[in-house]
Amino acid sequence: MNERQIIEYITALAGPADGRLLQGIGDDCAVVDKDGRRVWLLTMDTLIENVHFDCAFHPPEQLGRKAVAVNVSDVGAMGGRPVFVLLSVGMPRGFDESWFRAFAQGLTAACREYGCFLIGGDTVASPQGLNFSLTVIGEAEASQVVYRSGARPGDTVWVSGPLGYAAAGLELLRRGLAPDATAFALFREKHLNPTARVELGCQLAESGLAHAMMDLSDGLATDLAHLCKQSGVGARLRARDLPGVAALAEAARLVGADAESWAIGGGEDYELLFTADADAHDQVQDLGRRCGLSLSPVGTVVAGEGVTLIRPGADGVIEEIAVAYQGFDHFRSRAGG
Amino acid sequence: MNERQIIEYITALAGPADGRLLQGIGDDCAVVDKDGRRVWLLTMDTLIENVHFDCAFHPPEQLGRKAVAVNVSDVGAMGGRPVFVLLSVGMPRGFDESWFRAFAQGLTAACREYGCFLIGGDTVASPQGLNFSLTVIGEAEASQVVYRSGARPGDTVWVSGPLGYAAAGLELLRRGLAPDATAFALFREKHLNPTARVELGCQLAESGLAHAMMDLSDGLATDLAHLCKQSGVGARLRARDLPGVAALAEAARLVGADAESWAIGGGEDYELLFTADADAHDQVQDLGRRCGLSLSPVGTVVAGEGVTLIRPGADGVIEEIAVAYQGFDHFRSRAGG
Repeated sequence: MNERQIIEYITALAGPADGRLLQGIGDDCAVVDKDGRRVWLLTMDTLIENVHFDCAFHPPEQLGRKAVAVNVSDVGAMGGRPVFVLLSVGMPRGFDESWFRAFAQGLTAACREYGCFLIGGDTVASPQGLNFSLTVIGEAEASQVVYRSGARPGDTVWVSGPLGYAAAGLELLRRGLAPDATAFALFREKHLNPTARVELGCQLAESGLAHAMMDLSDGLATDLAHLCKQSGVGARLRARDLPGVAALAEAARLVGADAESWAIGGGEDYELLFTADADAHDQVQDLGRRCGLSLSPVGTVVAGEGVTLIRPGADGVIEEIAVAYQGFDHFRSRAGG
Repeated sequence: MNERQIIEYITALAGPADGRLLQGIGDDCAVVDKDGRRVWLLTMDTLIENVHFDCAFHPPEQLGRKAVAVNVSDVGAMGGRPVFVLLSVGMPRGFDESWFRAFAQGLTAACREYGCFLIGGDTVASPQGLNFSLTVIGEAEASQVVYRSGARPGDTVWVSGPLGYAAAGLELLRRGLAPDATAFALFREKHLNPTARVELGCQLAESGLAHAMMDLSDGLATDLAHLCKQSGVGARLRARDLPGVAALAEAARLVGADAESWAIGGGEDYELLFTADADAHDQVQDLGRRCGLSLSPVGTVVAGEGVTLIRPGADGVIEEIAVAYQGFDHFRSRAGG
């Protein structure tokens, strides 16, 4: 069983819920009715040492901040504002107390910045290694929640910032290759201390501009495939429009990686992925600027299914590549150029 | 730092929340306003392999049930009914799929029985060993929620069932000493597959009989000390009234343990601990019977602080023993008999 099969298995067992549940398993958050007019958004994410973070290069204060960011990102990606946080901490006996204090300081500082409060949780002994589960509860107007399922053929596909930076940063940190050169510091920061685009998500929801939205946690290829599947549509991505690829070139050369693969397959950028009317191009750009962000149109929603990457290949031939969950598919097709 | 210090440290960092939060860290659940009339109760518990369960003797279906029970128990202990569940699953790559299926079946079956729905969560790879975090959201009338802080001097201290059975069951299972003799099977069941007293908790809340309430997860000594501290009172426990001690005698002899210590210090019974007017004795007993439970008065709330255990010692001398967090204190005093 892979992750998807695990989720499908347990979703089928769980069966249908009652009317108070507006969205169950399958979106960034579960959505439940609060008072008929507003909803609560519920999300939970776990970070495990040596799977999701490496203490050798992850400062505890930044890890605490990241634990909050990756969760509130899910709330923002549905157009909600985070309100409450529950934290379960697992630490081995004899853990480093100064490490924990810095982690807790980062976590609570991030809660304050995103406007939410730590209200409870659990502390447990772990046989080895650290693990943290957070549950974040957010709030939104029921009528403004943006689901993954609202994309329509003809929509423009947008991303809220450069792609692949977190993957590049992680690779550089693993290799001890993260000198203070400006671009490298940006990549490093993106892995260690990402910013969740909560304000953008809320404004996109309030404006009604976004038809479908989610956060980029598993990489554009996987996440856009999810969004398309939930919406019953396909998408065409333009490689030349993916933001960040040029900036990644030097780092990619240094570690023998491919910048475009980072941008398409790399996870944990925590940018927003959304679709909007093609006609709304300028409004979307303006809204992004008001949030201090440069938003990038990267493709188009089409009828059908699947995600296709379009890029100029050798000799000016245009390649069309089927992009699957977890990055590139082995299958490649070529169309004339 | 011990668990209490960790919680105090992070609570101080978190600072005060806003008016929507009626109860933060420090009770069985966090309590937040839902619609002015009703509240939501939020709790989170993590189970880690070889800390909270041992797959060598814990059948997966029962572990799935227990993961739900220990969380809904916190909701019931404040007088609420569980509504929604989030689950984060951490499993090593190459986990046993049939084990996971049985776990998921137990978990979802328990959700149905307690009237709540699995609505989301997270699945992650664990470097080794299994871990599960659950968040449970419950609901209650704001005016009926029973906190730990409501105990008053003169109240009777009640428990909803026998104490120490889970600790005995765990010890017997660890030693492979759990034959099918009736009492031993009960102890085993109490560790492997405890029942949360949700219906009792709700009826106590609705009736207004319980002044303070919590569930017994860390053992009577520790939990009653918490309840007393939150209420600003002390308590006197009568050893001869602790239910279950006599039934534990044979198991205690078999493993060289002390039955009374199990009853006072053993965790994970998931019975309810509550206080009520001394005058309400018969009403409480009747309410228990309607829930199919035999409730036991085990002591009295007194002004002051600390928990004292009163028992007949050698030669009919009455011992008064200061009971501290985590069981007996080293300090012992004797009063005349």
